[in-house]
Amino acid sequence: MMADKKRCILAFSGGLDTSFCALWLADQGYEVITVTVDTGTFEKGEAEKVAARARELGAAKHITFDGRQKFFDTVLVNLIRGNVLRGGVYPLCVGAERVVQAIEIAKIAGVENVTAIAHGSTGAGNDQLRFDVAVRVLAPGVELITPIRAGNIQRADSTKYLTERGHTVPNKTTSYSINRGMWGITIGGVETHDSWLPLPDDAYVFTRNLNDTPDAPEEITIGFETGIPVSLNGKKMNGVELVETIGELGAKHGIGRGMHVGTTVMNIKGRVAFEAPAPAILIPAHRELEKLVLTKLQSQLNAQMGETYGTHLHEGRFLDPAMRDIEKFLETNQQNVTGEVRVRLHKATAFVLGARSEFSLLGRGGTYGESSGQYSGADAAGYCKVAGLEMAAAHLARAK
Amino acid sequence: MMADKKRCILAFSGGLDTSFCALWLADQGYEVITVTVDTGTFEKGEAEKVAARARELGAAKHITFDGRQKFFDTVLVNLIRGNVLRGGVYPLCVGAERVVQAIEIAKIAGVENVTAIAHGSTGAGNDQLRFDVAVRVLAPGVELITPIRAGNIQRADSTKYLTERGHTVPNKTTSYSINRGMWGITIGGVETHDSWLPLPDDAYVFTRNLNDTPDAPEEITIGFETGIPVSLNGKKMNGVELVETIGELGAKHGIGRGMHVGTTVMNIKGRVAFEAPAPAILIPAHRELEKLVLTKLQSQLNAQMGETYGTHLHEGRFLDPAMRDIEKFLETNQQNVTGEVRVRLHKATAFVLGARSEFSLLGRGGTYGESSGQYSGADAAGYCKVAGLEMAAAHLARAK
Amino acid sequence: MMADKKRCILAFSGGLDTSFCALWLADQGYEVITVTVDTGTFEKGEAEKVAARARELGAAKHITFDGRQKFFDTVLVNLIRGNVLRGGVYPLCVGAERVVQAIEIAKIAGVENVTAIAHGSTGAGNDQLRFDVAVRVLAPGVELITPIRAGNIQRADSTKYLTERGHTVPNKTTSYSINRGMWGITIGGVETHDSWLPLPDDAYVFTRNLNDTPDAPEEITIGFETGIPVSLNGKKMNGVELVETIGELGAKHGIGRGMHVGTTVMNIKGRVAFEAPAPAILIPAHRELEKLVLTKLQSQLNAQMGETYGTHLHEGRFLDPAMRDIEKFLETNQQNVTGEVRVRLHKATAFVLGARSEFSLLGRGGTYGESSGQYSGADAAGYCKVAGLEMAAAHLARAK
Amino acid sequence: MMADKKRCILAFSGGLDTSFCALWLADQGYEVITVTVDTGTFEKGEAEKVAARARELGAAKHITFDGRQKFFDTVLVNLIRGNVLRGGVYPLCVGAERVVQAIEIAKIAGVENVTAIAHGSTGAGNDQLRFDVAVRVLAPGVELITPIRAGNIQRADSTKYLTERGHTVPNKTTSYSINRGMWGITIGGVETHDSWLPLPDDAYVFTRNLNDTPDAPEEITIGFETGIPVSLNGKKMNGVELVETIGELGAKHGIGRGMHVGTTVMNIKGRVAFEAPAPAILIPAHRELEKLVLTKLQSQLNAQMGETYGTHLHEGRFLDPAMRDIEKFLETNQQNVTGEVRVRLHKATAFVLGARSEFSLLGRGGTYGESSGQYSGADAAGYCKVAGLEMAAAHLARAK
Repeated sequence: MMADKKRCILAFSGGLDTSFCALWLADQGYEVITVTVDTGTFEKGEAEKVAARARELGAAKHITFDGRQKFFDTVLVNLIRGNVLRGGVYPLCVGAERVVQAIEIAKIAGVENVTAIAHGSTGAGNDQLRFDVAVRVLAPGVELITPIRAGNIQRADSTKYLTERGHTVPNKTTSYSINRGMWGITIGGVETHDSWLPLPDDAYVFTRNLNDTPDAPEEITIGFETGIPVSLNGKKMNGVELVETIGELGAKHGIGRGMHVGTTVMNIKGRVAFEAPAPAILIPAHRELEKLVLTKLQSQLNAQMGETYGTHLHEGRFLDPAMRDIEKFLETNQQNVTGEVRVRLHKATAFVLGARSEFSLLGRGGTYGESSGQYSGADAAGYCKVAGLEMAAAHLARAK
Repeated sequence: MMADKKRCILAFSGGLDTSFCALWLADQGYEVITVTVDTGTFEKGEAEKVAARARELGAAKHITFDGRQKFFDTVLVNLIRGNVLRGGVYPLCVGAERVVQAIEIAKIAGVENVTAIAHGSTGAGNDQLRFDVAVRVLAPGVELITPIRAGNIQRADSTKYLTERGHTVPNKTTSYSINRGMWGITIGGVETHDSWLPLPDDAYVFTRNLNDTPDAPEEITIGFETGIPVSLNGKKMNGVELVETIGELGAKHGIGRGMHVGTTVMNIKGRVAFEAPAPAILIPAHRELEKLVLTKLQSQLNAQMGETYGTHLHEGRFLDPAMRDIEKFLETNQQNVTGEVRVRLHKATAFVLGARSEFSLLGRGGTYGESSGQYSGADAAGYCKVAGLEMAAAHLARAK
Repeated sequence: MMADKKRCILAFSGGLDTSFCALWLADQGYEVITVTVDTGTFEKGEAEKVAARARELGAAKHITFDGRQKFFDTVLVNLIRGNVLRGGVYPLCVGAERVVQAIEIAKIAGVENVTAIAHGSTGAGNDQLRFDVAVRVLAPGVELITPIRAGNIQRADSTKYLTERGHTVPNKTTSYSINRGMWGITIGGVETHDSWLPLPDDAYVFTRNLNDTPDAPEEITIGFETGIPVSLNGKKMNGVELVETIGELGAKHGIGRGMHVGTTVMNIKGRVAFEAPAPAILIPAHRELEKLVLTKLQSQLNAQMGETYGTHLHEGRFLDPAMRDIEKFLETNQQNVTGEVRVRLHKATAFVLGARSEFSLLGRGGTYGESSGQYSGADAAGYCKVAGLEMAAAHLARAK
Repeated sequence: MMADKKRCILAFSGGLDTSFCALWLADQGYEVITVTVDTGTFEKGEAEKVAARARELGAAKHITFDGRQKFFDTVLVNLIRGNVLRGGVYPLCVGAERVVQAIEIAKIAGVENVTAIAHGSTGAGNDQLRFDVAVRVLAPGVELITPIRAGNIQRADSTKYLTERGHTVPNKTTSYSINRGMWGITIGGVETHDSWLPLPDDAYVFTRNLNDTPDAPEEITIGFETGIPVSLNGKKMNGVELVETIGELGAKHGIGRGMHVGTTVMNIKGRVAFEAPAPAILIPAHRELEKLVLTKLQSQLNAQMGETYGTHLHEGRFLDPAMRDIEKFLETNQQNVTGEVRVRLHKATAFVLGARSEFSLLGRGGTYGESSGQYSGADAAGYCKVAGLEMAAAHLARAK
C-alpha cells in the first residue's frame, strides 16, 4: 500500500449492489474497507460469508460490528416507549437501523482515517437519504460516494461488471426483495406494486401461515421497567435476547404480518409487506401497561410525541437534536411504566389479557361505574354542570 | 290529567334504574313521557317489551325512536373518516350514542312542551356528563332531574321501591354489566376491575370464541365513497344495514374483542371489555384505502383531527362547535377516499388484503424502490444533500 | 414567427435577473412571453415601466395581471383567519404570493400554448422551490427553465451579458434587497447577515421612524365578517383596498417593523427585516374578536391549524390538498367571527382597545370573577374536586 | 390552647375575604395559622402589615414565606423557555403562583400538623380550582375549608361580620380589582366586563402612560443560559432580581400593557387587563435567541410544548406528572439557548435589535439568499423537484 492511496469505507452487505461497489471502488484506486453492521440483518453464519465475500472482492479489510444492542438502546427503546406504529400498523421495522449503521461507520471512519465513505443505495428508495444525511452530519469532512446512484447502475450492469472480472454474482433465490432486521422484515415484490393484491402466503419468510400455527394458545408475561421490556416469563433478558425470543414466539403463532402504504422520503407512495412479530406483541403489551400508569395528559402527549418521533425517524431525521428532546421527554414520561403484562399468542393474534403495576392508577381514584367515596352525586352534578357552560353559551349565542 | 300537571320526559331503557325513575317521577306528581332512542341498543323484539314496561310503570306516553341511521350519519361517519380508536384499540363503541339520544329527547321536549327531562345515570360514570351537557345545551330552559344520582339510589333501594309498589324487577341473567350499541358492546364485571384479569370467554355475548369460528377464511369487499362505507360485496347498503351486516360477519369470525383502560370523564381510571367487530373491520379497511389517496400531510392532519374528535366525543363535548369544524375538515379531507377494500376475515383477525381507488397515488409519482422516470440519481442526491443541511449545521455548532 | 418556434413564458419583474433571462431565452430561440403578476409588488407607474422593459428586451408579448384581489381571497383570508405569524412575529409577508403568480402563469401557459415556463430564481433562496413546485403541479407537461440557477449566473455575468447586447442594467439605488408585496415588505442587507445587528432606520422604505410619527393617537374601527376584514371606520372595502389603506395608516404610525430568523425551505437559517403594518394591525384585531366568539376548543384548534397552514405555505406546499382541508376548517371555524374591533395606532404600536360581536360569549355564561346565577358554590366545589381526581391518584401512586 | 383544638392553616392575604376567613375559622373553634406566600405580591412594607393584620384577627401564628425565587425556578423558567403567551398576548402573569403558594402551604401543613387548610376564594373564579386541586394532591388527608365559597359570603356579609366584632375593613382605594405578582399585574373593573371598552389609562398601576415615558430609547442586553435569563447588561443576577429589574425598566417605558379575553377554568369567558413589562421584554428576547440556535423541528416542538404547558398551568394542572415531562423536554430543548440579546425599550415597545450565540446556526449552512458552497444549483433543482412529487401526483390523480 502506498502512503497516498485514498482509503474508503464501504457499507457492505455482500449483495449484488455492494459487491459491485467494492470492486468498482478498488478499480478507482481506493483502498476499500468494507464494514458490515449487524442490526439483526443476518441469519446464523451469514456474517462470515459476507466477510469472505468482501475479501474475495479485494477489500483491504473487513469489519463486522454487532450493532444489535446499540440498535435496541438507541432506537427500539424509543419506538416501544412511544408505541410507534406508522399509519396505525407498521412498526418501522426497516429503515431505523440505517442510523446505527451510519453512526458506527462514521466512528470507524475516524479510527481508520479514511477520506471517503461509500454506500450502495440506488436513487429510488428511502435508504439513500438516511445514509447520506447521517454521513454528512457525523463525518462532515469525508467524501460521500454512491456508485450505484451516481452511475445509475442497473442489475444487468453490475452483473456484467462482476462476472467480467471473474466474480460470481449472488444467486437470487426469490423474486421478492427482502430486508431483514431485528425489529422485523419487509418484503417487496410484484404484488406490493399493485395495491389490490396481497402478498402470497409463501412469500413470507419468518412467520408461519395460520394453518401451520399451534392450535393451543400460549400465554407469556413480559416485564417492563420505565417503559422498556426487561424480562420474559420472569426471566431477565437484555434487549436483543428479549426481542429475538419474542419474535420467534410470535413467528410460531403467525403474528405480525401486515401490509403498509405510505409516502416515502422521496415523496412518492410506496407499499410494502412486513412480518414483525416482536413489535406486534411488545407494543400492545407496553401500551396497555402504560394506560394503567399514565395520566390522561401524559398519555396524550406520549401519543403525540411517539407519532412525531416515528415520522422523523422514518424520514431520516434521527440526528436532528429535536429527537434527543423527544427521547428525554419519553424517558421522563415512562419513568413509572414498570410492571408486567400478560399476552396470549394464538392464531395470528396477540391478545393482551391483563397488566399490573405498583404505580397503577386503576382503583385509586375510586372504581369506575361504582359509587366512589371520593365524590358525591352532588359533586358529580356540579362537575357536569360547569363542564358544559361554554357549550351552552355558544349555542345560545349562535341560535338565531 | 289536570292542566297544570308538570310533564317530564324520561330517557327510558326498561332496566332497573330507569324503571325506578319512571315510578318515582310519577310519585312526585309528574306526567311521565318515556322515550327510548334505539341506537342499536335492542335485540329483536326488545323495544316492544320496553314500551310495555313503560306503560306498566304508569308512563302517560311512550315514544320509541329509531336513531340508528341518524347515529350513523351524525357520529359513525366521523369515527370512520377519522379512524378513531381510543388508545389505539377502543372504537368508542358506547357513549357516543348518548348525544343522538339527547338530541332526540330535546326535540321531543320541544314538541311535547315538557318542563323537565330526567335520566337514570348514577353519579359514577361517563354518561351522566354526556347527558347533562346535552340537555343543558339543547334544552336550556328545561329542568334536569337525575333521581338516581341525586338520591344516591342503590340497587337495593330501587328494587325495594319497585317491589313494594307491586312491580317486578328485571331479572339479572348475568353478573356482567352489558351496554349494547350499533358500533359495539361493552362489558364490565368483576374481572374488569382487576387489571390483571381478562374477561372470561363465556362473558362475551356477541362474538364467537376462536374455537367456534369457521375454519375457512371469508373474504369481503367494502366500497367507500368520500370515506364512508356504502357497499358490501358490491351491494349498496345504507349505513345501518352495512354496519349491522359487517358486525354479524365479524362476530361469526370472532373479530373485535378487546380490553381498554382509560381515564373516564370523571377523571378516574376505568377498564372495560368490548366486542366491536364492525369497527374492527371497517376502520382498518378505511385506513388502508385512505393511505392510497391522501397525501402525507393530509394523512397527518387526519390522524390528529380524528384523535381530537374521539377525545372530545368521549368527554361529552360533541356539542362544542369545534366538533362541527372538525367534521367539515374530515369531509373535505376525505373527498377522494373513494374505492374498494378487500378484507379477509379469519380466526379473530381482519386482514386487509388490498385496496384500490381511481384516486390512488400509488404508482403515479414513480414506483417505490425502482428507478423512476420522474427524477434522476443526481436529483435524488441533491435532495438528500439539502435535506440534511440544518442537521449538519446543528452538529457542527454544538460540537465542542 | 415560424410555426415551430418554441414559446416560453417568463415570470418577469424587470430586475437584473429576469432581464437577463428574457434576453437569454430569446438567444436560445424561444419566443418569449413575459408575464408580471402584481400582488402588491409595484409602486404607482412601475408596472408600465416593467412592460416597456420587457418589450425592449425583445419579448414577443408582455402580460400584466393584477393578482391582488386573488391574493387576498386565496391566501390572505386564511392568514388572517388563522392568525398566522411565523415564530410569533413574522406575517409571511413575502413568499405566499409566489403561488398566486404561479397559478396565473400556469393558466396563461394553457391559453398561450407554450412548451416552457421560466423563472429567474437563484439556487439559494426559497422562491425557487415555491415556483418549481407550482409549475410542476399546475403545468405538468411544460418544461421548466431556470437560467440563473442552472447557469449559476452571478450579478457580474448578467450585467455583462446585458450591456454587451446594448441593454441598460437597472440602477441599484440601495444596497438592500427589497421585496415588496401587499402584505408587507422584506429587506435584506449586510446587517441581516449578522444576527447581532439591527437594520438601520433609514433602510426601511415604507414605515415612518418613530420620531416622525404623529404625536396624537389615531383610533380605527375594523369590521369583520366570518373572520374576514370587510370595513374600515364603517366604510365597506374590498380586501385590496382595505389592506392597502390599513397598511398606509400603520406605516404613518411606524407600525409593523421587525426582524425574523427562521429556517428556509433549503434548510439553512435566514434572517430578514420586514415592515408589515397591515398584518400588524389586522391580525391582533382579528384575534381579539375571535376570542370573544370561539369556544376554548375552537380557539385551540384554530391556533394549531393556523400554525400548520403558515408552515406549509412558507415551505411551498400551498398546492397540497391538505391546505384545502385546512381552509375549509378555517372557514367553518370562523363562521361567527363577525363584529367590530377598535384599534389605537400610536407610536409604533397597534393596541386593541375593544371588540364586539353579536355572537360574543362574554357575559353569556355568567360574569367572570363575580358570582354567577348559573352555578352555585357547591357546584363549583364539586367541579374542582372531580377535576383533580386523577392528579391526586397519580401523586398517591408514585409517592414511595 | 387545649390539646384537642383543631389546627387550620389559612392562606392569608390581609384582604377582606381572608380577614373574614381568619375570624370565622377562629369562631368555629380552629386554632388558625395564617400563611402568606410572597410571589411578588407585595409592595415594600406590605408583608409586615399583613402579618400585623393576621395577629389582630386572632391568628395563633403567622408565617411569611418569600416564594419568589422558587416561583422563578419552578414556573417562570418554563414560561420563558416555552415562550408562553396565552392567546398570543397574555403572559399568564397571575394564576401560576397559586401552585407555589399551595406547595408551601402543604409543606407547612405537614410541619405544623394541621387537620385543615382553608382559602378565601369565591366560587366564581379560577383560583379556587388551582387551590383546591393543589391542596388535595399535596395534602390528601387534610380537610379543605372554603368559607367564602361554601357560605356564598358577599362583600356586605364579610364587612358586617368583621365590623360587628370590632375589626376594621380594608379601605378600597380603587374601584378596580388588582392582582399583583412577580410576572405582572392583572386588573379587572367595570370596563373589563364590556368587551368594547379599554381600561382607562389611570387605572394602570405600574407602567407609565406613553406620554410620560422617556423620549430617548434605552438599549439593554440580556444574557441567557440554557434558555434562562441570567444577566442584564453584563451583570449576573438571580431570577428574582432580574425579573424585577427588567420589570421596572419596562414599566418606565410603558411596556407590557394589554387586554386578554379567554375561557376561564370554570368554562365561562373572562376579560382582563394586564401590565406585564418583564415578560413583554424577556419572552421576545428569548424567542429571538432561540431561533438562532434551535433547528426547525426543535422550534416547532418547543412551540407546541410551550403552548400545552401554558394551557394546563392556566387550568390548574401544574401538578399533573405530564407537566414534569414537558419541563424535561424544555430543559433538553433549550440546552444550547445560551447567548445575548439586545433589546431597545422605547415608547411602549420592546424591539429586539439582535441576538448572538456561540451555538448559532445562522451562517453555518451557508448564507441565505446568496450562493452557498454547500450545494449547487443542480442540487437545489433536484431538491425542488423531489419536494413536489407527491403534490404533482395528487393533482394528476384528482384532475378529471
